[in-house]
Amino acid sequence: MDIINGSFIDQLNRAIRGKPKQKRYEEDPDNAWNCCSWCEYLLIVILSTILLVGVLILTLFWVMFYRGGFAWTERPLQQFNLHPILMVAGFVTLSGFSILIYRLCRCVKHIYVKLIHMFFHAVAIPCIALGFLSVFDSHNALQKVNFYSLHSWLGFVTMGMFLLQFVIGFFTFLVMLCCENKTYSCRSAMVPIHASLGLANFWLAIATSVTGIIEKERETAKDPNLSAENQLIEHYITSAIGLTLVVIGIIVTFAVRRTNAPASAKVYVTERI
Amino acid sequence: MDIINGSFIDQLNRAIRGKPKQKRYEEDPDNAWNCCSWCEYLLIVILSTILLVGVLILTLFWVMFYRGGFAWTERPLQQFNLHPILMVAGFVTLSGFSILIYRLCRCVKHIYVKLIHMFFHAVAIPCIALGFLSVFDSHNALQKVNFYSLHSWLGFVTMGMFLLQFVIGFFTFLVMLCCENKTYSCRSAMVPIHASLGLANFWLAIATSVTGIIEKERETAKDPNLSAENQLIEHYITSAIGLTLVVIGIIVTFAVRRTNAPASAKVYVTERI
Repeated sequence: MDIINGSFIDQLNRAIRGKPKQKRYEEDPDNAWNCCSWCEYLLIVILSTILLVGVLILTLFWVMFYRGGFAWTERPLQQFNLHPILMVAGFVTLSGFSILIYRLCRCVKHIYVKLIHMFFHAVAIPCIALGFLSVFDSHNALQKVNFYSLHSWLGFVTMGMFLLQFVIGFFTFLVMLCCENKTYSCRSAMVPIHASLGLANFWLAIATSVTGIIEKERETAKDPNLSAENQLIEHYITSAIGLTLVVIGIIVTFAVRRTNAPASAKVYVTERI
Repeated sequence: MDIINGSFIDQLNRAIRGKPKQKRYEEDPDNAWNCCSWCEYLLIVILSTILLVGVLILTLFWVMFYRGGFAWTERPLQQFNLHPILMVAGFVTLSGFSILIYRLCRCVKHIYVKLIHMFFHAVAIPCIALGFLSVFDSHNALQKVNFYSLHSWLGFVTMGMFLLQFVIGFFTFLVMLCCENKTYSCRSAMVPIHASLGLANFWLAIATSVTGIIEKERETAKDPNLSAENQLIEHYITSAIGLTLVVIGIIVTFAVRRTNAPASAKVYVTERI
């Protein structure tokens, strides 16, 4: 990494002006965003909101109108339908919003952003637990083998990593704040690990969802009780869900790499280019 | 972002010692890695090499011993088998090595690292083109519909993004070097975009491969010509390929977020924690 010209003089000015380390990056007028940065920011916020809510509505539409709606243990086939809805809600919509809010929220105090980030993930936990229970119950009632397909293996890893991230994140970034100064180096070391594993887990959830959707779509395509027209419509709906999930993955990856510092702002340490 | 205590004094010392901006980050003795950082580095290098080569060998093993080997237009079923091998080689093994080499190579001059990064991606292009041609020819010969499944849609987006990234990366980070100072701000603005879209494209390639593998596995599971034992073995092989691909995705995501600066080294600008 290179230190950009003038950073020493900037530091000197800042030191003379006093208390530079109490100023957050985005509060510094030197780092004010230009019109282009704001447009990019708004585009990401609007597009990701539409897609994260849209994929949930699309899955709901598919399950309600083409898979026979919901039920609990009394109708195992319909109980299974809770699985895609709850997993997409927990692993994609809620987790996606949680990640984006943490990264893109600029106006709220940082501790509140952390709490909102944790809250969204916490709400995702019962969704995931119920989603897991519904497929487990439904498989047992229909005497299907559990943990046989690639989807189930990936799902197991995703759930394990999600729980691990939640527990470690909760203790490191919230509980450890009770002793803020002493835990600083530990927390700063954990930031890139938590962020990269979080992003990896989000993609893992997307890969798992896509495998599940394809397994279901292939099953539907061989179902003799369905008309060719219905099979074709379901094929397009499930493919659209899969494609939306992958587009969400791309946007979230793009958004989290984007720091609060736009490319045009002054930075003190840069990537090697 | 906060400016860490003492950075001003460090800058002052550096300014007195002279020419701080000509020193690369990893050349500075203050940023020397400790034993733990080296262990983590070696673990990532060894594990990713094993997995990137391993997934290619596993796919080769599956195709050679369970799918009847390779051929060109004279045997369309065997011609199709070139598709998984060439796509995994181009989009996963070569692209994966290219990304990791760029991010993890510490001892070679930066321009050489860039050229190696480009070389690996350039070698991936004929693999991808041949892989695409083989499935297209095979589908036409077997009178199968093209661009029908989610796998094909995702594959189309992945190929388009790969080409776009290659062309833009080539012009921005290599051709523009002919006028190094004037293009600095443009290149520095492009770094996070190229890196995040590259990572997104790598995950897109993994999601596409996993969907393709599952589609093939579901097809195999319904094939009356295969024995139940063979179907089960193929199921485990394809699931293992899918799982390996996802693990590769996680490791690469983890490795690229890791800068050349280990968490324990001194940094001047930190994340908000």
